[in-house]
Amino acid sequence: MTYDVIIIGGGPAGLTAAIYCARARLNTLIIEKSGCGGQMAITDILENYPGFTGGINGFDLAVKLEEQAKNFGAAIAYAEVFEIRDGKIKQTVTADNTYESKTIIIASGTTNKKLGIKQEEKFIGRGISFCATCDAPFHKGKDVVVVGGGDSAVQEAVYLAKFASSVTIIHRRDKLRAAKSLQEKLFSCSNISILYDTIAQEVSGSETLESLKVSNIKTGAVKELKVSGVFVFVGLLPNTLFLTNIALNESGYIITDENMKTSAAGIFACGDVRKKLLRQVVTAAGDGALAAISAQHYIEENFDAES
Amino acid sequence: MTYDVIIIGGGPAGLTAAIYCARARLNTLIIEKSGCGGQMAITDILENYPGFTGGINGFDLAVKLEEQAKNFGAAIAYAEVFEIRDGKIKQTVTADNTYESKTIIIASGTTNKKLGIKQEEKFIGRGISFCATCDAPFHKGKDVVVVGGGDSAVQEAVYLAKFASSVTIIHRRDKLRAAKSLQEKLFSCSNISILYDTIAQEVSGSETLESLKVSNIKTGAVKELKVSGVFVFVGLLPNTLFLTNIALNESGYIITDENMKTSAAGIFACGDVRKKLLRQVVTAAGDGALAAISAQHYIEENFDAES
Repeated sequence: MTYDVIIIGGGPAGLTAAIYCARARLNTLIIEKSGCGGQMAITDILENYPGFTGGINGFDLAVKLEEQAKNFGAAIAYAEVFEIRDGKIKQTVTADNTYESKTIIIASGTTNKKLGIKQEEKFIGRGISFCATCDAPFHKGKDVVVVGGGDSAVQEAVYLAKFASSVTIIHRRDKLRAAKSLQEKLFSCSNISILYDTIAQEVSGSETLESLKVSNIKTGAVKELKVSGVFVFVGLLPNTLFLTNIALNESGYIITDENMKTSAAGIFACGDVRKKLLRQVVTAAGDGALAAISAQHYIEENFDAES
Repeated sequence: MTYDVIIIGGGPAGLTAAIYCARARLNTLIIEKSGCGGQMAITDILENYPGFTGGINGFDLAVKLEEQAKNFGAAIAYAEVFEIRDGKIKQTVTADNTYESKTIIIASGTTNKKLGIKQEEKFIGRGISFCATCDAPFHKGKDVVVVGGGDSAVQEAVYLAKFASSVTIIHRRDKLRAAKSLQEKLFSCSNISILYDTIAQEVSGSETLESLKVSNIKTGAVKELKVSGVFVFVGLLPNTLFLTNIALNESGYIITDENMKTSAAGIFACGDVRKKLLRQVVTAAGDGALAAISAQHYIEENFDAES
């Protein structure tokens, strides 16, 4: 069968696009590689998504969006997309299937950047984590490090401080980038300390992680922190490696116009995978609605006379 | 006192901007002319705002957003803004006060052009709608009227035809103004008919709308259409009459870049009052978050050294 719209990625952008597409009676398939929700699903509390006074757990919001999209008739397939092929009818290729559609909406999001240090791969899942919500309970009463200085790093450090005996933030700059309100929360936690001008150098341990060597970029001083966990929040990488003929910026994010059109006709992009100023659940959702309407207009202009 | 941010308008764009500004510890004042919520507050059920499976009443969502903004510390003043004055410190003028701020976010929205007919006010939200995307599903299998002959009217009529059993367009001229491609789509829908040279005269019903009386302006003939809905697309009016030195497009909408910057430094705009493709709660909210971050950046660049 030929879908009207295939949406790659089931985070807030993809799910909102699905809500709008399915509600507009477009035959809509979401292809999600693991579970719906994307980065949102591993966030403890979203305080600033409009409509939930007091905040909402990211996974809970993901479940709501997924249900809302399904209620309007969107289908979900669980698979990783390896390639998309352009044409009047477009193809989306997974390990087991090649799906066909009139339009594609790319909402594939981002992956957390790794540190790029020695032994990192070995200890991912054995002490190195990209998700405090997921892994904090494993470090109850232990000492952990958070790497980074932005909103995510600070928010996750505050969360970790409820479990770990101590949290040390290491940040390569001399001040945090995180929102003021988050910083206030941070400074009210007595078991969080910060090492500025500091970068991670090497992790070590036997079965699981036992220590992290860090160095001060101004003084060159090196020290070893005995910790059970290193939580990494140093930025994001767009999930665009499967794309070939779509214009990306120098960091690999998809370039769109303000209506979510990519460089390829009938292919749209929304959410964190786009080149944009602000990556938040509400901006991803707004993008998703726009991508859906743009896809709908494209179908009306290019297909409706035939059907 | 000098606020960091004054937000003009308490609809979803303005309230989301307030949530983001206040959470970033900016001293934030919303100035709203009537009650918070804007156009959203007069919508019975928002089915497509992401996060509320089963939908949420527009007024209820407005209350939640307002509470969320207040919880983070935003203040609200109820007054109509008559003028804003640019400068390093900007002024916002109401009947009783002149407020000062480092930045202004304009989220003053739009007003629907009404029909100007008898009983119209009574049935707004009870059959008279200004948004097919919002309300079409409530008229599944029923008969509705669309008033207007431009792109919006025709596009929304085609959308409504997927839900309603019949759609009657009434248009005061003898031909449609809508784009040819839209008209082609219209004529391919067997359940849409058009009454030319016709204007709406009076709506009636008990609890909800039950009929619309129309008259032919050439023959004077009057007839009554038994319908559950009257969708009015005779135009929107951006609420920008109080602005003087901000670039607007030919229809009066504020021109911004993709980060919500207007033509005046330190003045931002978000939501329906902007020139944009899609006017929905979720896109307004996304705009609001972006305007807040842009205002925050502007303050950091232009004021933070002093404070």
